[in-house]
Amino acid sequence: MHRVKVRVAEDALDANATIASANRADFDRAEVAVVNLMSAPGAGKTTLLERVLGDGATIGDGVRVGVLEGDVQGSLDADRLAHLHVPVVQLDTGSGFGGECHLDANMVRSALPLLALDDLDLLIVENVGNLVCPAEFRIGEDARIMVSSVAEGEDKPLKYPLMFRTCELVIVNKVDLLPHVDFDFDKFLYHLHAVNPGVAHLEVSARTGEGVDALRTWLARIPERLGAPA
Amino acid sequence: MHRVKVRVAEDALDANATIASANRADFDRAEVAVVNLMSAPGAGKTTLLERVLGDGATIGDGVRVGVLEGDVQGSLDADRLAHLHVPVVQLDTGSGFGGECHLDANMVRSALPLLALDDLDLLIVENVGNLVCPAEFRIGEDARIMVSSVAEGEDKPLKYPLMFRTCELVIVNKVDLLPHVDFDFDKFLYHLHAVNPGVAHLEVSARTGEGVDALRTWLARIPERLGAPA
Repeated sequence: MHRVKVRVAEDALDANATIASANRADFDRAEVAVVNLMSAPGAGKTTLLERVLGDGATIGDGVRVGVLEGDVQGSLDADRLAHLHVPVVQLDTGSGFGGECHLDANMVRSALPLLALDDLDLLIVENVGNLVCPAEFRIGEDARIMVSSVAEGEDKPLKYPLMFRTCELVIVNKVDLLPHVDFDFDKFLYHLHAVNPGVAHLEVSARTGEGVDALRTWLARIPERLGAPA
Repeated sequence: MHRVKVRVAEDALDANATIASANRADFDRAEVAVVNLMSAPGAGKTTLLERVLGDGATIGDGVRVGVLEGDVQGSLDADRLAHLHVPVVQLDTGSGFGGECHLDANMVRSALPLLALDDLDLLIVENVGNLVCPAEFRIGEDARIMVSSVAEGEDKPLKYPLMFRTCELVIVNKVDLLPHVDFDFDKFLYHLHAVNPGVAHLEVSARTGEGVDALRTWLARIPERLGAPA
């Protein structure tokens, strides 16, 4: 039974890679850089986006941002972002996708007609809150960012290594809680660099605003780093 | 493609239900009550177990407890519990199970030979940290308990309704952080009871020990409630 299961999973990942390449080609044509934003449930992805995008339709030097919101059910997160000045599209994995615990390339592809890619320089895709499966499915992104909250404990890179290994930036969020939780920051960084040597990290508090400017700058520079004129 | 995918998923769930029934029969024969303990990553399941089981080999009025630890990779949690006086068996979903994001009935079944069921009254199965998939797979349990940390925010019952709907007890953990996070407890309970009317909840802090006695009592009473003589 397990051999069959593994084969089905491999077929699904092969199909995903093909569709991810098609997404990638569309993003390249439109000169849009794409970020896959991942974390455990409640790590603060949506609040961070509210903070980063709260001031207008662009970040940095005129970088036009759009958001694709992935959720298992409902449109709570997209509703929270609706007051922002950036285009937000909701992708509900419970409708037509069987309540999947992650976004895959095909789900993202189904949302592309709803996005005016030509009007964007940076598309941020907020994945489903989950530290396992989202890491296995490329969606055609340029960069992966994951958010890890200090309330989750410093052992997470060791317990969910694929997620931490495949990202270009780790946002350590809720640093305002550091005095109130048992989180050994040095140990976290030691574990993080054990699975992803030298990966960049930013210390942020979506609640107090600490580190949000640095994150906005990091995001705004992605299109430039990729050579796509913003 | 999606129709095939859904059919594969349904087949998998049917097979799971069959194996869950076999587990259930074994548990009944051994007169062991089984708890499926679920949460998001970092909500505090392992620390709660350390607290609840820290004092000896039994809880309540001589209820003998065992723990089955599910993780995607490694044995960090089982190692943390190794100093306790209860039997702990590690189940690694990365070895032979393809790195699954949840425990299913077959994985639990593969661990049963390692557990002396006849010497137990209560088996606590710590699932993989994930708010989506574990809820879809029965393992033959008598009760489902989920842990929700106040650091995760009060919207989680609405975003992951299946998980909250199918449990008998919700542990609201990390209540010591309430003064430091934006968590509206009334709103959380309103959302919780919208998806699971009248479900019991306990307010707990694994860090300070608040509510741990109440949780230990709740767990110790499960075998009795089920009519299995402890």
